[in-house]
Amino acid sequence: MTSFETGLKETASAVEAALSQRLADENIPAQLAEAMTHGTLNGGKRLRPYLVIQTASLFGISQADAMPTAIALECIHCYSLIHDDLPAMDNDDIRRGQPTVHKAFDEATAILAGDSLLTLAFEILGHKNSHPNPAIRANLVTRLAKAAGAAGMAGGQMLDLEAETKTLNEAEIRRLQLLKTGALILFGCEAGGVLAGASEAELANLGRYGKAIGAAFQIKDDLLDIESTQETMGKAVGKDEAAGKATLVTNLGPDQAHLELDIQIDKAISALEIFGTRADTLCDLARYMKSREK
Amino acid sequence: MTSFETGLKETASAVEAALSQRLADENIPAQLAEAMTHGTLNGGKRLRPYLVIQTASLFGISQADAMPTAIALECIHCYSLIHDDLPAMDNDDIRRGQPTVHKAFDEATAILAGDSLLTLAFEILGHKNSHPNPAIRANLVTRLAKAAGAAGMAGGQMLDLEAETKTLNEAEIRRLQLLKTGALILFGCEAGGVLAGASEAELANLGRYGKAIGAAFQIKDDLLDIESTQETMGKAVGKDEAAGKATLVTNLGPDQAHLELDIQIDKAISALEIFGTRADTLCDLARYMKSREK
Repeated sequence: MTSFETGLKETASAVEAALSQRLADENIPAQLAEAMTHGTLNGGKRLRPYLVIQTASLFGISQADAMPTAIALECIHCYSLIHDDLPAMDNDDIRRGQPTVHKAFDEATAILAGDSLLTLAFEILGHKNSHPNPAIRANLVTRLAKAAGAAGMAGGQMLDLEAETKTLNEAEIRRLQLLKTGALILFGCEAGGVLAGASEAELANLGRYGKAIGAAFQIKDDLLDIESTQETMGKAVGKDEAAGKATLVTNLGPDQAHLELDIQIDKAISALEIFGTRADTLCDLARYMKSREK
Repeated sequence: MTSFETGLKETASAVEAALSQRLADENIPAQLAEAMTHGTLNGGKRLRPYLVIQTASLFGISQADAMPTAIALECIHCYSLIHDDLPAMDNDDIRRGQPTVHKAFDEATAILAGDSLLTLAFEILGHKNSHPNPAIRANLVTRLAKAAGAAGMAGGQMLDLEAETKTLNEAEIRRLQLLKTGALILFGCEAGGVLAGASEAELANLGRYGKAIGAAFQIKDDLLDIESTQETMGKAVGKDEAAGKATLVTNLGPDQAHLELDIQIDKAISALEIFGTRADTLCDLARYMKSREK
């Protein structure tokens, strides 16, 4: 394991501890709390919270101070997985090697657990623990809602479902992916700057970094879907092809997709130049987008 | 139509105009936008936004200034109806006399439309249009998230689903209803005070009013479910009894339930005494909780 991967893993443990603490609320009906926990504390990579924590650390903000925003973002990501796995959506039985929430419980509970995690993200961000300055909290709330909503991630999922019955061109695939996975990753990268009250120029560079690694993440995901196995991934593979879904990989071919992956990683790294060596870990993260095996 | 009902209807029109304007966003995929509109602009009474507007007006806040908070609350209410109607939940085909969202579109679209409206509520509240003071916006975000989340409305829906397979006692029924419908109504009543920076004493009285009319609303709903018709209600009736769901009406019997309804309305009106004649409309609203026919 590289030192980057060790760091990612350590952060993942801290994120899980914070999530676990936040989900322990005796006012939540027991079955709903269990389903929220099942859909959250299941061994994800915690890439999105890692982005918040690392971009915040560029500006000297501690992991503890970035953690509420980090876990709010992870709540949104986990809710989206729970709902995407539902029979009416992608109909997946296995996620991270475990039964999906609607398999472990039932569909109604999975819908409510997703709704509850989505709502919890905003409860966390609105609370003064996420930042002492309410203007920054309100800014984060609006940004995360835009990233997750109908003109962001949820809209991307809508386009993804439509893609099962129609053929998308390259521009349409890029739009879909920018919304479906790009928007939350972009939020994660900008969030550190927002927490720090960064300058417009700094935020713009974080945004360029976020867009590039979001694109790289998705290309790698689509490559893994054709090149990896269910055993390694902990979820079904080959599903895009089976469902007739166009991705950049099917559209450009694997060789061109690998090339595009390299280009995006270079873009991501060059966007961080203004931060100098402080951004070394974020550069490692960009390279990890290519090297990761699941 | 009484002058109270005329006022309620006028406000509903203004709420619908504001919702319609907010949903017209060309960045939202077309089918998703249509489903969100179908689930929102369908002739509801708009009681919850009316509560926000009327409690804000107690403190001299204009309808226009209260409107963003009012429509954020209505987005949450409409999302909850879309998800509650799903086959895995209450499995309803008709709502407000129209096909439910999953019947007019499909289940996946209904899930995403609900998710999107839930998210939009927080995008609206976080934005400076909802109040110039970010501390008040962040406060509203946290309060609404608590009211709607796992220890609020979503938790109540979980208990409601569980009630189909187990028998609840009176205390359990009251807890369920406090969460499932009470929490959002309470938010609507307190929101006007929060927008105005009201005193603790004023907020406490708004809270007493909110709890009482929330309880009255639910009792009346359960009475209508046994006393009214699908034609009048625009949705299926007699469903609680058919599903074996305990309500205060089945638990106490209709006579006792009517008595309890009167008690809650008296409580609501007495909580408004400190506001004098400024609260006349809110007192009319409490009485309307008993007289309404759907």
